[in-house]
Order: sequence, then C-alpha cells, then structure tokens
Amino acid sequence: MSEKRDTQSGLVVSAHSADFVWRAGGAIALHVQQGYQMHIVCLSYGERGESAKLWRKGNVTEAAVKETRQQEAQHAAELLGATIEFFDLGDYPLRADEKILLRLADVYRRVQPHFVLTHPMQDPYNYDHPLAFNLAMEARIIAQAEGYRPGEKVLEAPPVYCFEPHQPEQCNWKPDVLLNISEVWERKYAAIQCMRGQEHLWEYYTRVALQRGVQAKRNIGITSHKAISHAEGFQSIYPRVTEKLA
Amino acid sequence: MSEKRDTQSGLVVSAHSADFVWRAGGAIALHVQQGYQMHIVCLSYGERGESAKLWRKGNVTEAAVKETRQQEAQHAAELLGATIEFFDLGDYPLRADEKILLRLADVYRRVQPHFVLTHPMQDPYNYDHPLAFNLAMEARIIAQAEGYRPGEKVLEAPPVYCFEPHQPEQCNWKPDVLLNISEVWERKYAAIQCMRGQEHLWEYYTRVALQRGVQAKRNIGITSHKAISHAEGFQSIYPRVTEKLA
Amino acid sequence: MSEKRDTQSGLVVSAHSADFVWRAGGAIALHVQQGYQMHIVCLSYGERGESAKLWRKGNVTEAAVKETRQQEAQHAAELLGATIEFFDLGDYPLRADEKILLRLADVYRRVQPHFVLTHPMQDPYNYDHPLAFNLAMEARIIAQAEGYRPGEKVLEAPPVYCFEPHQPEQCNWKPDVLLNISEVWERKYAAIQCMRGQEHLWEYYTRVALQRGVQAKRNIGITSHKAISHAEGFQSIYPRVTEKLA
Amino acid sequence: MSEKRDTQSGLVVSAHSADFVWRAGGAIALHVQQGYQMHIVCLSYGERGESAKLWRKGNVTEAAVKETRQQEAQHAAELLGATIEFFDLGDYPLRADEKILLRLADVYRRVQPHFVLTHPMQDPYNYDHPLAFNLAMEARIIAQAEGYRPGEKVLEAPPVYCFEPHQPEQCNWKPDVLLNISEVWERKYAAIQCMRGQEHLWEYYTRVALQRGVQAKRNIGITSHKAISHAEGFQSIYPRVTEKLA
Amino acid sequence: MSEKRDTQSGLVVSAHSADFVWRAGGAIALHVQQGYQMHIVCLSYGERGESAKLWRKGNVTEAAVKETRQQEAQHAAELLGATIEFFDLGDYPLRADEKILLRLADVYRRVQPHFVLTHPMQDPYNYDHPLAFNLAMEARIIAQAEGYRPGEKVLEAPPVYCFEPHQPEQCNWKPDVLLNISEVWERKYAAIQCMRGQEHLWEYYTRVALQRGVQAKRNIGITSHKAISHAEGFQSIYPRVTEKLA
Amino acid sequence: MSEKRDTQSGLVVSAHSADFVWRAGGAIALHVQQGYQMHIVCLSYGERGESAKLWRKGNVTEAAVKETRQQEAQHAAELLGATIEFFDLGDYPLRADEKILLRLADVYRRVQPHFVLTHPMQDPYNYDHPLAFNLAMEARIIAQAEGYRPGEKVLEAPPVYCFEPHQPEQCNWKPDVLLNISEVWERKYAAIQCMRGQEHLWEYYTRVALQRGVQAKRNIGITSHKAISHAEGFQSIYPRVTEKLA
Repeated sequence: MSEKRDTQSGLVVSAHSADFVWRAGGAIALHVQQGYQMHIVCLSYGERGESAKLWRKGNVTEAAVKETRQQEAQHAAELLGATIEFFDLGDYPLRADEKILLRLADVYRRVQPHFVLTHPMQDPYNYDHPLAFNLAMEARIIAQAEGYRPGEKVLEAPPVYCFEPHQPEQCNWKPDVLLNISEVWERKYAAIQCMRGQEHLWEYYTRVALQRGVQAKRNIGITSHKAISHAEGFQSIYPRVTEKLA
Repeated sequence: MSEKRDTQSGLVVSAHSADFVWRAGGAIALHVQQGYQMHIVCLSYGERGESAKLWRKGNVTEAAVKETRQQEAQHAAELLGATIEFFDLGDYPLRADEKILLRLADVYRRVQPHFVLTHPMQDPYNYDHPLAFNLAMEARIIAQAEGYRPGEKVLEAPPVYCFEPHQPEQCNWKPDVLLNISEVWERKYAAIQCMRGQEHLWEYYTRVALQRGVQAKRNIGITSHKAISHAEGFQSIYPRVTEKLA
Repeated sequence: MSEKRDTQSGLVVSAHSADFVWRAGGAIALHVQQGYQMHIVCLSYGERGESAKLWRKGNVTEAAVKETRQQEAQHAAELLGATIEFFDLGDYPLRADEKILLRLADVYRRVQPHFVLTHPMQDPYNYDHPLAFNLAMEARIIAQAEGYRPGEKVLEAPPVYCFEPHQPEQCNWKPDVLLNISEVWERKYAAIQCMRGQEHLWEYYTRVALQRGVQAKRNIGITSHKAISHAEGFQSIYPRVTEKLA
Repeated sequence: MSEKRDTQSGLVVSAHSADFVWRAGGAIALHVQQGYQMHIVCLSYGERGESAKLWRKGNVTEAAVKETRQQEAQHAAELLGATIEFFDLGDYPLRADEKILLRLADVYRRVQPHFVLTHPMQDPYNYDHPLAFNLAMEARIIAQAEGYRPGEKVLEAPPVYCFEPHQPEQCNWKPDVLLNISEVWERKYAAIQCMRGQEHLWEYYTRVALQRGVQAKRNIGITSHKAISHAEGFQSIYPRVTEKLA
Repeated sequence: MSEKRDTQSGLVVSAHSADFVWRAGGAIALHVQQGYQMHIVCLSYGERGESAKLWRKGNVTEAAVKETRQQEAQHAAELLGATIEFFDLGDYPLRADEKILLRLADVYRRVQPHFVLTHPMQDPYNYDHPLAFNLAMEARIIAQAEGYRPGEKVLEAPPVYCFEPHQPEQCNWKPDVLLNISEVWERKYAAIQCMRGQEHLWEYYTRVALQRGVQAKRNIGITSHKAISHAEGFQSIYPRVTEKLA
Repeated sequence: MSEKRDTQSGLVVSAHSADFVWRAGGAIALHVQQGYQMHIVCLSYGERGESAKLWRKGNVTEAAVKETRQQEAQHAAELLGATIEFFDLGDYPLRADEKILLRLADVYRRVQPHFVLTHPMQDPYNYDHPLAFNLAMEARIIAQAEGYRPGEKVLEAPPVYCFEPHQPEQCNWKPDVLLNISEVWERKYAAIQCMRGQEHLWEYYTRVALQRGVQAKRNIGITSHKAISHAEGFQSIYPRVTEKLA
C-alpha cells in the first residue's frame, strides 16, 4: 500500500467482500479514471452470509470459502483500479470492538480521503451493513480529533455517501446524488463478473444501473448535456459546501 | 425584461416582496457575480402580513404600504443585480388560480432557469410560503410539458432549492447545501438594509449568515480551502446528477 | 355571545358538531372550571358523514338531521360551560373559501384566545378534519397580521393543540401533552351522552380517557401528586415558551 | 358498463390514461383472471404532459393527441380484461371541483370495489398524481357516508393501495405489498405495448417488474412456494384486518 | 420441546416473561387453534423491572421473584397452547452477547417459524424491548445464512410482526395489521389473569383489545363479514408477498 | 456532594466536560436561581475530541489536557451554582459498560431529579453524544425499577429534555420548548468564558441564544408578558402531564 497523500483519494468501507462491487464499482472506476487513488476496506469476506452458492456445492470449509471470496474481491478491485485490504472480522454477525475502530481510524489518517463510500444506516435484511456504516462514521470522527495520536495530520471533513442497498425503499434509503457511470460501466460489469458465487445478482445490478441511468436523465438541468446510460445512486450524510447551485 | 437565453440564469419565487432578500440575497448576488442572469418573481408585497412597522405608524392605506414595499424590493433587487417582477396577488392569504399558475409557467419558459430558489414546503407560521413552494413546483413541471404551448422551447429539469425559513426546525427544513456567500456578504447586507419596514430582522439574518458560515467550515472536505465567514443554507428537492463526489 | 376580552379564553375549531365533545370535552370543562371563557366553532353539523344512526331510521330530511345535531351540540356545549356557534358549511365534503377563512379570523380577533384546540393535520379516514386544521391555522395567522383590518387589536401567538383522532396511529398523531381531566370527567361523560346519534362511541371514548389516564400516571414527575384517572391527549404545533422545566 | 354488484370488483383511479398500465397492469390482469370485475377511471388523457412523442411529430392538435391516447388506453384495458371510463379533466394541471369529486363517489357506489388502486400521495415530479390520490381517497370516504344520497347502498371500507411511481424513493413511497404477477406478465407486457407514444418506458417498466420479482422472492415465507419472476409493489394506506399472520 | 417441523409454526421473542401475554396472547391462541405450533422465548423474567408488586411485599429475594414469574409465564403459555423456554438473561438492563445471539438463531433453525412476533424497534420507556427486537431480527438473519452451521436446513424468510407497546404513539409504532382475536379472547384473558404481579394491567389490556376491535371493524372491506369484538395490532417489518389484494 | 433530597433538583448528563455550558448553562443557572439543586455528570473531559486548541500548542500530555478541562468545567459549574462530578470515561470514542450504567443509575437514585437534561439521540458529527443520551435514558429507567437495589427509594418519572446540538437540523433535533434565560444570560456567558480552549465557540453560542430568544418572542401567547432576549431550546422525550393548556 503506497497511497500518496498529495493525490486525491477516496475510501470505501464494505461490510462484505463483494458489496463494493455491486454498490460502488462505478464510483470507484470513475474516480480512478479521474486520477483518484481509491482504497477499499473489506470488513469481512461475507463467508457465512453471502456465499450461498459456494456452500451449496458441499464439502467446503470456511477457510476455503474465505479464500475464494478474497480472490474474487482482489480481482475485482484490480479491474476497478483500486487498492484493497481485508480486516477479516467474520460475518453474520459482524462485530467490531474499539481496537478495530481505531484500526479503521488509522486507515483514514493514512488515506486522507476526499470522500467516503459506505452502507446506509438501516437495513432490516442485514445487520452487518449498518454496523459497517457506524464503524465508518465513528472512525472518521476519531480521525478528525486533534487528541487522537496527537501530532499526526488530522483528517478534514470528507463527505460520506451511502451506496444503494439491495431493497432500497425497505432501508429508507433515498438517493440525493445520481452519479453518471456510463463511461466506466464496462469496467464495473467486468468487476461484477468476478463474483462467481453470486451470479444471480449480475443481472439484478445491471438493471439497477440502467434504472438509475434513466432517473439521472430525468433530473438533469441545462448545464450537463452528456449522454447517460448507467448511474449509481448515493445518499449524502452531510450538507455539501459549494459556491455554485447549477 | 430582456433575459438572453444563452446565458446562464436562475429564478427566485418569493411569496412576499422581502423574502428573497433575507433568504436568498447571497445566492442571487453570488450568481450574478458569476455571470448568471437572476430573475425574481414576488407573488405579493406582503402588505398585510409582513409590514407591521408601516401599519403601526397609522394613517396609512394598503396602496401606500404596497408602494413602499415595491420600492424597497426594487431597490434591493438592483443592489443584488437581479431583475424583478411583481404578481401583486395579495397576502394573508395568498391565493393563486390556474391562470396565475400558467403565468408563472410562462416565466419559466422565458427565463429558462438553470436553478430555482423558493420557500420550503412546510411552515406552521405562514401559509403563503408553502403556497409559493407549490406554485413554483407545479409551474416548473408544466413548463416542462411538450403539450403546454406546443412549439415553444420546453424547460429542462433545473434543480429546485428551498431557502431558509424563519424558524427552520419548526418547518422540518434541513439544509443539504451550504452556499459560501462570504464574497458577496456586503452586497447582501446592503440589500437587507433596503427593508426599512422590518429593521428588527437585520441582525437576525446577519446572525443566520454567520451561523451557517461556521457550519460550512465544519463540513468542508479537503478540496475547498477558501475562507468562509458567511453562508446560506438550502434544501434540495431533487437528486443532483454529477460525475464527481469530492 | 358575550365573551369578555379581559378574562382568559380558549377557542375550539370542530369540523363536525360532535367532534369537540369526544376529543376536547375534558379540556373545555376543565378550563371553564378554571375561569376560562371557552368558545366553540362547529364548521358543519356532520349531517352526511357522522349521523349514520339518524339516517338509518329512514324518512328523514337533511334539514331534520342538521336540526337534531345542532340541538345535541348546543346541549353538550351548555353542559361543558362553553359558548358555541355554527358555520353550517356542509360536510363530506367540507369546503371553505376565503370568505369563510376571514370569518374565522374575525372570531379569533373577537375571542382573543389564549389557546386553540382543533383536529390533527392528517387523517386518512376523514378529509374534513385536516381541512378544519388548516382553516384554524391559517385564520389564526391572518388574525395576527397588522394589515388585516388595520386598527383592530391583533391576535398574539396562542398555542395550538391537535386533539385525538379516532385512530391515532393511522393519523401519525403523537400526543406530547396529557391533560388530567379526572375532576371533570363526569361533566364530559354527560356531554358525551348528548350525542344520541353516535351511541356506539360513548364507551369507545370512555376507554380512550381511561387509557390516557393510565399513560399520564406513567409520565408524571415528582412535582405533581394529584390522582389521575382520566386524561385527554394533545399534540402541540408550536414550541412552548417557559421558565420552568419541571 | 355492466358491472354486476354480486361479483368481486376492484377500482383503479389513474391520473393519466397510461398510468394504470405501467403501475397496475399486472394487478388488473391477475384479479380479472381470479374472477374480479376490474374498472378503471382515467381522470385525463395525459395529453399535455405525457404525450411528448406525439407532440414532437408536429402538426398535431390537442384533440388528435387525446383521441390517440384514448384509443391506446381503451385497447390496453381490453387486453387486461377491464372496463374503462374517461373523465377528460385535462392535465398539467389536473384539477377537480366538488362536482367531479361526487362523480367519482358515484362510481364507487356503483362499482362497490373490494379494493382500490391509485397513485401515491407525494410526487415532486408530478402534481396530477397526488391530486388523483386525494380525489380517490376523498370520494371513497363520501361514498361511505350514510347521508350522501341517502337510501343508496353505502360503500364498505375497501383497502387502498398506492402503486409504484416513476422514481419511488423520491416520492417517499415504500412498498409493503409485493404482488406476484408472474402468471399474467405476458398480458401486462402486451398492454404496455399499446402505449406507442411512450415506447421509452417499455423496458423501464419491464425492469421494474423483474426487480420487484427478485425482491418478492427475498420476502417469501415458507407458506408460498410458487415461482416468482415478476411482481408489482404497492403501499397500503389502511391496516389490513386478518385472522392469519403467515 | 418436541416441535414437529412439518406442521406450521410461529415464534415469539419476549423480552420479559409477561410481554407475550399482553401483546400477543391472542395471536398465539388463534394460531394454536388453527393448528400452528407456537413457541415462546422469554429472554428474561422481568424480575427487576416488571415485578413491582412482588417487590413491594418486602422480604423477597430475586430468586423468589424469578420463580414466581416463571410459574406465571409457564401457566399462561399452557393456557394459550404454546411451548415456552426461558433464557434467563436478567433485565434492567437486558444484555445479549454473540453466544446468546447464536442460541436464538439455533431456536429459529429448530422451530422453522412461519412467522415471528416480537417487540417494536423503539421504546423510550424501555431499553430491553428494542434489544429484544434487534436480537430477534439479527438471529433470524443468521439462521437464514447458508454458511452458519453449514448442512443444516436454513430458515426461509418468515414475516416479522412487532406487537403493541405500552404507549404506542410514543414508540412511533403504527399497526398495519389488525388481527381478529374475538374467538380466542376468553383464552387470552385467562392467560392475562395468570399475571398476578401486574393486576393493574388486566383492564388496561382488555381495553386495548376492545379499541383495536372497534378499529378493525372500521377497516374491513366487503370480503370479511365476521363479527369482531377484540383485536390485536401488529406492525410488519417486511413487505408481504401475495397474489390477492382484497 | 450533599444534595438534599427534599429540595427540587435537576440532573444534567454531559458527554464532554464543556457540553453542559454551551447547551444548558442557562437552564442550570435559571433553576438554581429558582431554588433547584442542579447536579452535572460529565462522562468524559473531551480530552481527545474537543480540546483542539490545547493540543495545537504542542508539548502537552493527555493528563495535562484533562486537568485543564476539569478545572474549566469545575469553574463553570461553580459560576452556574451547580455541583459536578466526572466519570472520566475517555472520549472519541466514549464507551460505557454495564457497571457505568449502574453507576449513573445510582446518581439518579441519589439526586432524585425533577427533570433531566442531556444530548439528543442523533448526531452525525459526534458518536459520544448519542451514547450519552442512551446512557442517561437507560440509567433513568433502571433507577425506576423496584427490583434494582430493592428497598431504596425508586425514581419517579422525571421529564427528559435534549439540549441543542451544534448543527441542529443535521441532528433532526426540533425544539418543542424554548426556555427564557434572559435573566441569567450574564451568568451563562461568564461560564462560557471559562472554556478557554474553545474560544471560537463563545460568539457562536451567544448568537444561538439570541436567535432562540427571537423565536421565543414569536411563540409567546397572551399569558406571558416578560421581556425575552435570550433563550435555550430543548426537545422533550416524553409527553408532559398538565392541567393547564395556556
């Protein structure tokens, strides 16, 4: 890992090792293309809860599932152009104590991200996702504190965006940002195809990208005239500071 | 009125003739400085409900109050660099029938705004403000319809921002945009001083600008390093379409 | 009608002629007992929508239903110690134009209420109730305006309380005030019994009063040690201004 | 129109003449297949706001657009097996006075629906849709009133379901019912293809049906083992009364 | 414990040993009558926080309070026809670590419930209730994971219903299901009477059942013509999948 | 510490050692003036997260920062007339186990507060604040339980008020109480000036007090005619029980 601090960077906190692909693969690839250093933290491999197909083959150990999942995620990250690290905390349930919290705060300090992507705060289908949200949020705040590892460069206030959950309305998730990922869609779809254990989701998330693309076209003002075919939705946690409203 | 359609423009829909000053004076001046053509529609003069000081002088007619209010608003608009027109619909209560709705739709068609500023959708202290919001929203949608005055250039989908009400939490208003108006604060304060009938609000809205300025500083990421002393808050109605998250 | 302006007073805006009994009969009787002049405005008699029992008898005219309803309401108001007036606007649907709005604003000016009771702002079972809420709210605001009938004594800012709807959770109604009506319960129940056309509601609203009474006991701090058996719930629209938190 | 009152029936209130197809075509076809008499009321033809393709051809009158739209809707209703009537109120803006409200109440009385489908209550992209919702809701309540056209059979309390808007999260729409329309999908898609003026929506609503289908599979308990490929989502307004929780 | 997996079953997760009686006794008895195997998990006896009457007698140990509470709950479960088990985790505060979470997941695997009943997610009067909700929710999700105890039959997706809290509006609880428990009311009331330590609640929850019964009658469509005197309210967490809207 | 139990008292639970000054200094001074015994619990010194200025001086240890912060808080409490104790739990992150929870419950038992002040339940800028809220809430409930330390005088049901966070709208905080602190403003400002490490906040919270003062004047009914210049806002958690609505 060799993030340079003078380039722009982004941080993705993913509960399981495939979440960053379905939910933020376009944002990652797009910002890499714009010169950002994108870094992904996978809190777990999703070995218990999101590897059904692997388990159903039978005669498989947890270690083997984790290894497969790590390879898939590593490969996907490479295709997207991002660095990736694995905390291997276990899933279903995912748990994080204070030590893990500070470990993530240290990642923030090191990466100094210009923006952060993570899960939304509610998900009645998944308890690991809100935990990842809270961990990402609290670690960010600690990394901003002058009194945490005094002397280190503190984190400024990067915006946090919650990416799209599997059943958005049930999570009370409401996108206020639609990111045009049309230019990098092929790269995202290539990364999606790394996830061999969840093939049933490939077309689901292709359709998500197409629907968000149509919606993006409906919300465009006069300023932007780029063609849009695919998009990703995000919900902001903080107000954005700007000098331009159009 | 001679808005050119090839320059960038913004539209402000103000229930009473002073609202645009307190709530959006900074946004207006800032975008004028950036080359935008800003246009203001005042639905009423606020003659009944927002001219207490004028009435308390006694021996005054409604016509006189309206004239005073018009002059103040005209003067403020000039200082901000905007054009202004008055619908003179009366206030307390403000009412608008279908004819007025279409008149405003026609303003949208003429101005072709790149963004729109108006009141928030709730205000338990004021029924004219939500009416202005609904009128601005519905007129915008009609101006987008191919079948309304077919042949005219239809409106695209400009973002709509709700500016700050007098008691923000009571209106369930939550800013997701903080606009840095530090550079144009002096101009906004000059416009505020045109409102001689509501002098008690001058310092109130100065403090609002300072508080939002402090909050803006707290929400700034690494990208922006401009000094911020004053800000205005806005709540977006629609998701924004973008290609950059930082 | 002979309200004296120097005594304390309260105003109740009731969509149909029985609403004030079920929902605010205790508050009315209690404040009358405390020396308040309580005045009730019934916007309609509820002749179409809340007089099922009368219609089912057959061979009855709308005029007769209205007369019966007026007598019941008049009698109930007398038992509670309040004055009452009827706007007779019709129900199902209830509608109010600007003239009616100003007529109600004039009642506010005349009564100068220290507090206001009306319906909540949502009710998926009843469209007349939210209309009454909005009418009561907007009229109150107009009565506060210096420019409405200039020279008259303007209304100050009386708190508005929304009384309990028939299916409280479905209306998103959440009481933040529990009024101890134990001392006047007998009087409220006598008023309830005037409503001969809706006998099926007598026991329903008795149970409501008992449930709110139990809840009130659960929310009492150390300061108050009065016995509580019956209560009425209310939801405030505005923050209350106070100098004491216990 | 020849609804028999002794069969089960359903009523659909559609703001524009194509809404019922995109949003409820599956529910209509499915209940027709189950023996329900389904009846559709189109409040307008959507001639101004939802016929862009027709207008863009040029040289077309509003009368011609309306006729085309009526034919498309009539054809779609036939394919779905439903009866249809047109109120022709105009769109953008849609407006309905008390006479229209009572006309719709009379439809309720005639059809005596066992359930009702209409638009959700919020839509920042469309003011005609919430108006249709409110009209459908208030007319239903009036049709329940003993005092409205006394002597007629009153309406009982049919459940109301809000169908899916174009941008669901932006409308704060949250489905609590997922209807398995797999068996009638072909019929719905045939009806969709009648809408020649909005061909860009065909694939959009095909994807919506597939996404809701995947979500339905995720929410199925043990009881139901039918295959699900396509679904429609609905949001209930009222609690359902039942004797079984699984 | 001898639940057969081929019969239909339901699971109730109760924070304290009496909650299942007040809040879900009717649902339990009704489904037992319909042939369901109902199983109750009591996380604690409510020995500290919900046994005031027992403590006020004085000269009593915590062990004695727990024994009394267990006997009452056991007796109530028998009257309702359900099996019951006690986790004995302690109350005020109730706490559950990962081991407890997995223990409950194992109950899900064993019972394979067709539906789940538990507390709502918010309660400002009680911190044990939301904890029980979260435990029941997360354990259900773990029991669905292929990688948890691979080889075991995984749980499908049973609906979860939150039963009624003591002060429903204060918990933001909004029932979307009203269960007609009229036929089993006598059995529920017999179970209620087992709770000798909380006699003050007997009449409170009788009135709750009567109020929900009246509300159920107000929400019934044409399809159902059963008499309703008593009901229980529930709030669904997940959308229901169905093929019928009436 | 020598709180007498027969006087009226209030309890303030403050996450960091300065929170009680900015957010509740007026309420504390005002109730002290009214004869209340006010007691403050500081869960941490805010040494890491809220002492930036001290750290920036360099060459400083955490122990030294804590000592400075303790002195400042002690001094401020004295000026306000309150007693204070420090739990010294550490901040960023603040964590509290069951032992701490019971320690706080014991403070409740000892102080027997008539009202409680603490942080709001949400704050995306601060995870210690919601933790303090939850700790204060759960400890209060335990102190009410007969079975916790049986034989001790249990706590009644004191109201809980959430004081104003730094960015109120972002915390979904909505004040329903505006406390007139005009008489004690000088004392609050003196306490504010003790906070030498956060001088940038002095004017910020002065403006907050002025804004809330203006808002209080806007919400005053006829009953109260005191002059108001400064106020503090609070959000109630529980409904208040009363016998008077004006």
